[in-house]
Parts: sequence; structure tokens; C-alpha cells
Amino acid sequence: MRFNAILNHLNTYEPGKDIEIIAKEYGVKEVIKLASNENPLGTSQKAVEAIINNASKAHLYPDDSMSELRAKLATKFGVRIQNIIIGAGSDQVIELATHAKLNSQNAFLQCGVSFAMYEIYAKQVGAKAYKTKSIMHDLAELKSLYDKHKDTIKILYLCLPNNPLGECLNESDVEEFLGGIDEDCLVVIDAAYNEFASFKDMKKHIDPAKLIKNFTNTLYLGTFSKLYGLGGLRVGYGIADEKVINALYKLRAPFNVSNLALKAAVAALEDKEFAKNSLENNFSQMQRYEEFARLNALDFIPSYTNFITYFFEEKNSSDLSEKLLKKGIIVRNLRSYRLNAMRITIGKPYENTRFFEEFERILRGN
Amino acid sequence: MRFNAILNHLNTYEPGKDIEIIAKEYGVKEVIKLASNENPLGTSQKAVEAIINNASKAHLYPDDSMSELRAKLATKFGVRIQNIIIGAGSDQVIELATHAKLNSQNAFLQCGVSFAMYEIYAKQVGAKAYKTKSIMHDLAELKSLYDKHKDTIKILYLCLPNNPLGECLNESDVEEFLGGIDEDCLVVIDAAYNEFASFKDMKKHIDPAKLIKNFTNTLYLGTFSKLYGLGGLRVGYGIADEKVINALYKLRAPFNVSNLALKAAVAALEDKEFAKNSLENNFSQMQRYEEFARLNALDFIPSYTNFITYFFEEKNSSDLSEKLLKKGIIVRNLRSYRLNAMRITIGKPYENTRFFEEFERILRGN
Repeated sequence: MRFNAILNHLNTYEPGKDIEIIAKEYGVKEVIKLASNENPLGTSQKAVEAIINNASKAHLYPDDSMSELRAKLATKFGVRIQNIIIGAGSDQVIELATHAKLNSQNAFLQCGVSFAMYEIYAKQVGAKAYKTKSIMHDLAELKSLYDKHKDTIKILYLCLPNNPLGECLNESDVEEFLGGIDEDCLVVIDAAYNEFASFKDMKKHIDPAKLIKNFTNTLYLGTFSKLYGLGGLRVGYGIADEKVINALYKLRAPFNVSNLALKAAVAALEDKEFAKNSLENNFSQMQRYEEFARLNALDFIPSYTNFITYFFEEKNSSDLSEKLLKKGIIVRNLRSYRLNAMRITIGKPYENTRFFEEFERILRGN
Repeated sequence: MRFNAILNHLNTYEPGKDIEIIAKEYGVKEVIKLASNENPLGTSQKAVEAIINNASKAHLYPDDSMSELRAKLATKFGVRIQNIIIGAGSDQVIELATHAKLNSQNAFLQCGVSFAMYEIYAKQVGAKAYKTKSIMHDLAELKSLYDKHKDTIKILYLCLPNNPLGECLNESDVEEFLGGIDEDCLVVIDAAYNEFASFKDMKKHIDPAKLIKNFTNTLYLGTFSKLYGLGGLRVGYGIADEKVINALYKLRAPFNVSNLALKAAVAALEDKEFAKNSLENNFSQMQRYEEFARLNALDFIPSYTNFITYFFEEKNSSDLSEKLLKKGIIVRNLRSYRLNAMRITIGKPYENTRFFEEFERILRGN
């Protein structure tokens, strides 16, 4: 059987190994996963209760208008419910945006290293990728590349802060930059980690209401997978001008988010205490990671997220990640991004302590 | 902002109104929903327990290999784990198949009236729809239309039993029919309701292991939304030759099904008692719907599913559905399929009694 020609250019996503399988394979008792930027404090207790209270309604299709969650988000961000679409993770909103704007005749633009799904979805529709030479966001370079190919670039991604590197542009610089982008180019502001950046430095804060008012060609993405501790339930959202949202809605499959995810997300939004604790733990523990890097002479990018990225010179990130794995510690090797680096999720205090102990031993070659 | 031209030809899916909103709007105390073919017995208690036991793990991304559920399905159906892909509902597997096979240069074929998502997804890639004049599956007519356009028909759908009509082909006839279809045409056997058909009459039973062994161009679809009572969690599956599954996997987004859905589905598969009770309730209550139709001189198609479709001549299905709604009873008006008919999900005994009482009054014009 033949398939659409585009499939010849696609790779199959290789899932990371499950914790239980790793534990078995390496004979370790406790596996510490610092690989997927999940919330180390777990799930908000309010969200857990919402799940438990609605478990016996699992046979009922979700309310496909998703009006409860959309109304809550609309209030939180000061936008209208018509400006919001819910996705199975913000990933799915990226997928919808790709199908709405990209095709085999056009292209997207991103910085040198950013969230992998931008390119994965673009490849599925045969769109070309433009990336800056700088791995991090460099607005001058992005602008120059955009100007050169503005006829074909129909999506421009800004990941604020950037995954998997951790750096973040200032909101004022982004605003100025957006003024130079054509109205027909959709600028996706991926704010999956923006709550972390805003907590550290309000200059990084993106206000979606202001954003979409000033720039009707922008799409703001948020997620419940990180700060809100619901990575397993797949729920994220897009905020944009109604014209953009309507286009995405045309491509959305009905019932794209589960009823338990919708209920849990509503509850998670209400648990401000959980979010506050998560942010405080993150940045107090982040200091330990920075201190560890300095003590061990490792390069790192000051991070505005819930992870930190270490760079290596002589040592090899694949080798180091494998050695950590044998000790039951999973980190994200960035070799697939062509970097000799690893991304480490900031964990609970004792998880981080275990990481430092094991990694120091590995770095010293013991 | 301009969007891909294909969006000009797409309509936005209009979700049905939520039960709570209807109750408020019409001032009814209890709303009875017989519209979405959800399991009237609810969710299996084992699945509910699995959800509750895993609620506090909602922050962890799903095991993206989905090996636990795939292994369970592989054992159940006597196929290999490599023959299985899990989707957010079997809907999503239809979407993946569409993207793998269809494009603006080719077409799909289905009977006159069948599951709406086949066409919705096909339109998104600009593929042409061929439908038989017969609303129900007529294999001779399907074959003749296929032969006429075999160069362009790249997906052929058989919905066994058929939603929203309820009829079902015999497996032996399907097998014979498949022999006449080219290897390059993907035949999707949508078996979302096949457990119901098999329970009523084993001649309707489709065995996916036998199917994909004899016909490497077939894709069998199953779901947890109907018999297994997990419509709200969005989990279904496709079973096919490894070459087909590999193609679908290339287009699958990572983490496309939530961790709670995976756990609940595994548990639901183990709850054979719940499935048995659901089937028994369904067909004993179905007799009441057939009896009601005869008493009120309504046309209906003998159903192999968990719903029944009533046809009207003088009365208007939109009008009747609206009158039922005012009494707090939601059914599925089939006007959007250009039928003067309604599809009614077989409910719990007391729900069906309420339906009969109210509907008899409406039919008599009281």
C-alpha cells in the first residue's frame, strides 16, 4: 500500500522509556524523573478532588463547548470566551495553527533551537523550516531572516521562555518586534512556561489580552501541563483574535479534550496556593542547580523556566545521561537538538540532592 | 489574515448543548440524554477505581508507548502489539488514516449515510466524497461505485454496524467483498459498535486478527466510548497490518491519550461483568423500542447497536426532537443527514419509560 508522499519525509516519534521499565532494566529501586518538566509537587489537591468527584461520569462525552473552562480562562486573562480554544495540550493548538496556515508552498520561522513540535507538525504538511543561526532567540536575526523570506513565512514562533534552553525575551522587545511583522504572518507566542518567567522577572510577562488587542496576528499558547501539574491529562489553550480562533475551530475535532481534564483544569486554576508553592520551590531549588554548575565549571543558561540546561565541552551529554540513567535518574539529553547539553527538570529538594550527588560522582569519573 | 484555502470549504462543528444548560433553559428538573450513545449503565466500577487510584498522578505525562493497553488489546484480539495504535477516540484514528491516504487529488467511498467524521476529516484535506444512493450499506452498489472510481478512491469505509442507522452486514459478505478491493485502497472497518452486533448475532462479528491477516489493506477500529462506558475519556484504537500502523504512527502526536484514559481502559477491559450487563440491558430494552414503534406505526431499522433509528413520514423529526427537548429528553435529530428521522440511544429502563410516555403524548399531539 502507498501512502501520501509526505510520509516519506517523516520520522516516527520515539517515546521515552517508562519509569517502571527503566527501574526494571537497570535494577534501581527508585527512579527520579527530571526529564519532562512535570510539576515536582505533583497535582493540585483541588484538581485531584475534581477528578475523583467526576470519575463516575467518565461515560459521558465532554461538554464540547468547553464553556466552563473557557469562561474561567476568559476571566483570568481579561479576554472574551470567543478568543479561546482548548486543545489536548497546547501541542494540539500548534497542530491546528499549522494546518490553518502552513502548506507545502510556504514556511515557518523559529530560533535555532526551540520546541520540537513546531517542526514536527510543519513537516507533516510539507512546510519549510527557517531557523536562526543563534540557538537562542535573537530578535535582530529573526527579523532579518523574516524580512528575507517574508513572502513565504506564514508562522513565526516565539517561545517565551524558550524550551529546551530556558532563556526569555523581554515583553517590551517582543512588542516592538511584532510591529515589524506582516499581518498575514501568524506569530505564535508559546507561553507554556511564561508563569515561571513572570514570577522571576515581570519584564518577561506576556499579557494575552494586551497582546491580541495590539496584534491581531498573534496566538498566545498556555498549558496546564507545567505549573498547573496536569501533564498527564493533556489540556492547553490558545488565545487570539476571534478570526484566528474561528479558523482553528474549523479544524478542531469534536471532543478533543476529555471531561476529566476539563474538570481538573478548572479546579487547578482555582488552586492559587499550589501554583505559588510550585513557583517558590522551583526558583529556590534553581539556585542549587546554578551553584552546582559553578562549582563544577559547567556552562548553563540562566533559566526562566522549571528546568535548567547544562552545556558540556569535553564530556559527552549522551554518555553522561546514560550514566545517570543507570543510577535511576532520567534527564533530557539534548543530542537530538544537536547540542552537547542536557535539560534537567527542577525537582523536589531530595530529588535534586540525589541528582547532585550522583552527577558529581559521574563528572569526576568515579 | 488569510488561511489555507481549504478552510473556506469547512464548517465549524456545532456542539450539542450541555445537559445543565438545557435543564436551565427549559426549566426541567431531570434531563434524560438519549443522544450520544453513551453507556446508560455508566462507567465500569473497575474503571472508576482505576481513575481514582491514578488521580494523583495527573501531573505525569502518559507512557507514550501505551504498551500496557496495547498489550492487553493484543492478547484480547490475538494480534501483535505492533498491529495496534491508540487514539483519542477511534475518531482520531480516522483522522490519522485520512492524513495518511487522502489528499485533494483523491477520494473516499462510504454508504449513503454513515458516521459524519469520515467526511469531515476528508474535507479537511480536500478529498472528494463518493456515497451510494442507498443510505444503508449495499455491497453491490458500493462495489459498482468503487469499480467506477477505483483509481481515485483511497479509503473505503464500512461501518459495521452502521452509525447512525443501526444496520449491519454479515461478516461472510464483507469478506467476499474485500476480495474485490485493490490493495492500495485502505478499507476502514469501523467496529465501534461491533460488540453489540456480535452479541445479537454472531454472523455480524468481525475478528480483527483474521481480517488483517487475510486483507493487509484493512484497518479495524474499536472504541472504549460505547460498550466500555468511557466516552468522556477519549480512547479508541486501530488494528491493522504493521505497515499501516507504522504509517499512522508517523502522523500521531506524542501523548495523544491521557494517562487516566489509558488506565481506565485497561481496567474496563477486565470488567467482563459490566460489559455483559450492558449488552443484556441494551437488547432487552431494545425490544421495548421496537414494540413502541409498532404500536405507533413508526418505521425503524432493526438495530445491531445501542441505539434505534425511527423514521417519520408526515411528522417532522426536527419538530418532534424540539418537543422532546422541552420535556427534558435529548435525542439525535438526523435532519443534518437529510433524513426525516431520529436516533435514540437505548437508555436505562426508567429513562426509556419516560421517553415512551412523553413521545407517545407528542405523537398524539397532546
